[in-house]
Amino acid sequence: MIDVAIMGHGVVGSGVAEVLIKNAEHIAKKAKNEINIKYILDLRDFPGLSYSEKFIKDFNIILNDPDVRVVAEVMGGLHPAYEFTKSCLEAGKSVVTSNKELVAQKGDELLRIAEENNVNYLFEASVGGGIPVLRPIAQCLTANDLYEVQGILNGTTNYIMTKMVNEGVAFPEALAEAQRLGYAEKDPTADVEGHDACRKICILAALAFGKHVYPKDVYTEGITKITSADTAYADFAGCVIKLIGRARLTENGKCSVTVYPAFVSKKSQLAHVDDVFNAVAVRGDAVGDVLFYGRGAGKLPTASAVVADIIDAVKHLSSRKYLSWDKAEEGYVTDHTEATVRLYVRAKADKCRDCLKAKAEELFGELQYLGRNGEPDDELAFITPFASEKTLFSQLEKLNGTVLGAVRLLD
Amino acid sequence: MIDVAIMGHGVVGSGVAEVLIKNAEHIAKKAKNEINIKYILDLRDFPGLSYSEKFIKDFNIILNDPDVRVVAEVMGGLHPAYEFTKSCLEAGKSVVTSNKELVAQKGDELLRIAEENNVNYLFEASVGGGIPVLRPIAQCLTANDLYEVQGILNGTTNYIMTKMVNEGVAFPEALAEAQRLGYAEKDPTADVEGHDACRKICILAALAFGKHVYPKDVYTEGITKITSADTAYADFAGCVIKLIGRARLTENGKCSVTVYPAFVSKKSQLAHVDDVFNAVAVRGDAVGDVLFYGRGAGKLPTASAVVADIIDAVKHLSSRKYLSWDKAEEGYVTDHTEATVRLYVRAKADKCRDCLKAKAEELFGELQYLGRNGEPDDELAFITPFASEKTLFSQLEKLNGTVLGAVRLLD
Repeated sequence: MIDVAIMGHGVVGSGVAEVLIKNAEHIAKKAKNEINIKYILDLRDFPGLSYSEKFIKDFNIILNDPDVRVVAEVMGGLHPAYEFTKSCLEAGKSVVTSNKELVAQKGDELLRIAEENNVNYLFEASVGGGIPVLRPIAQCLTANDLYEVQGILNGTTNYIMTKMVNEGVAFPEALAEAQRLGYAEKDPTADVEGHDACRKICILAALAFGKHVYPKDVYTEGITKITSADTAYADFAGCVIKLIGRARLTENGKCSVTVYPAFVSKKSQLAHVDDVFNAVAVRGDAVGDVLFYGRGAGKLPTASAVVADIIDAVKHLSSRKYLSWDKAEEGYVTDHTEATVRLYVRAKADKCRDCLKAKAEELFGELQYLGRNGEPDDELAFITPFASEKTLFSQLEKLNGTVLGAVRLLD
Repeated sequence: MIDVAIMGHGVVGSGVAEVLIKNAEHIAKKAKNEINIKYILDLRDFPGLSYSEKFIKDFNIILNDPDVRVVAEVMGGLHPAYEFTKSCLEAGKSVVTSNKELVAQKGDELLRIAEENNVNYLFEASVGGGIPVLRPIAQCLTANDLYEVQGILNGTTNYIMTKMVNEGVAFPEALAEAQRLGYAEKDPTADVEGHDACRKICILAALAFGKHVYPKDVYTEGITKITSADTAYADFAGCVIKLIGRARLTENGKCSVTVYPAFVSKKSQLAHVDDVFNAVAVRGDAVGDVLFYGRGAGKLPTASAVVADIIDAVKHLSSRKYLSWDKAEEGYVTDHTEATVRLYVRAKADKCRDCLKAKAEELFGELQYLGRNGEPDDELAFITPFASEKTLFSQLEKLNGTVLGAVRLLD
């Protein structure tokens, strides 16, 4: 029997306890060992549970108990999760987590500490909830030189975008509905501004390309400016708008990492990833495109990924999973404005629509014009040819009119 | 440095050699060891290759060379692949393979021999080509009680079905085009009759539910009877027709395993898996639905999966991956005719169409009628309510007319 501890009894933590207890027999068979929850760390009280006697409030009880070999950190946030994780690893305990913020910020350091102490730091649940993504990339695609990862990494924003696209509702209503259903938090900033997706693409980039990427170095744009007019024009263009996290190796060995809403062709698998579902697409030289799809969040899906890591850690108590990447490097993440893209633009004519059209063609070259139901007479929507973002956005400022919206196309 | 041998230098085998040589540096880093191809076994000669000196024709050279620790069996077929694999495992060599026929037929036995000899038998490439499927199921979804696996498991038939659905061409033309492009073999039986998909669903069922399933116990129906009239009616019903392999645990602890063409709702992710792509959807109690998507065949995708297994085997020379399942059990696979389904039926009226309609309603109950462009006056297409296959097909015999087509719906 192996003793484990769970730090945090929120949505994910209670799910981890539930799965470990409910599927105990099956899990013991898989882990070749019975797994016993010895402690659950939480500052709150949880009376009346079948396992209420396991709760403790002092982290040191876990740290100083040599019987606890594996700890699940499901508290979230940077502090004290960072200090607790570090101490556990240094004390020779493996740590598994769903904490994307901590992995995106301190992953390289914590992996190094794990390596030095011959224990494991596993975080499958930090990206894509219950969808197996990180381990397949690290273990199954190892024969490939990977050069691109992109995905729909945040269930909340995908729910909102799906609602806007399918039902034509505006962003505020779609957000309110997401909050009502518990998909979005009261303060939805981390989701709708793209911060959550940013942390996840940082982790994916680090794992796929071997170098740590800090969220602060990633150009991140949320979905708050997208309107139902934009989604209607996207439909006309054979696309849907999705919040896309993307990391690509560039020819000079650097890495382009971005998070922004983008026009995605309906021919792409990503276009059909709806509601709270997530998907991660990986591109390798041998395998081509591979896509992983499933529920990216939620209590039980996320808990199932944490528990799979617990099982893996229990099976590898005295051996290391080779999961690691190098430190971040100054200048490794490229300036996003230098990337070549096409841009969808929606603008309101100051004077005449035809003058705006002429000016736009002068600025950008040949344009693909879009239409929509109920399009106002003074509105113009088009897609530009490929150019650097820098060029496109500087031309945009010269447009004789008010730019109402601009969304990149996913090539 | 670790010596490996490749048995078979066909499409996959030459791909394995190519990937191992091309990505050698990257692979050595991942495997924490340089990987050296010591022998390639093939009865044919391959002069003029950069590695022509590695070819041998005598299997015993590999078997008796203690330096060869890992062998890739990419010969295909049951014999002598079975005997060679068995001998290698018994000699303490790990074996990796893309040979679905062998795994589906002898997987339980070979896994047991591997276990007895403390070596690994790995076969990620046997299902889904380069798509990571088996390892994620075995390692990442371990916290789940899995109860269903279904998928588009054969690229050739999926290419043909996509062509029929999107371009309205008939089966023979679509097959000819697939052959012209090298997607289908000259003798396409194994693909179009569903045998290949059957082997793969057997492997998936064994891995997900823990018990060997023999192809002979699986009801298997190919796509040769599907016409463009059927795909047109499917479109009317909001569906596409796909060849679906499916394995489900039933309430009494038995397992329903089938391969047949089915109406798939366009709302399903599987409906958007087109051309030679494959997808495997797994359903677990905690994670919900997870889907893996990518190129299910082809030289380099398949080779990349074989090489990932080689890397894994090299990393675990002295430890076992816990991959195993129990022997097949008489009566474990249920009688497919007892399953409850809805059926699409296309029939030609002997006398009047209305009489046929009346008879159909008398036999099946309330029907959903379908239409298509250019529908002949004496043709009737409908979807039945749910009933056991046995009931549905026996009622079908009583229909006053000629049944032109019958396809199950994927619920």
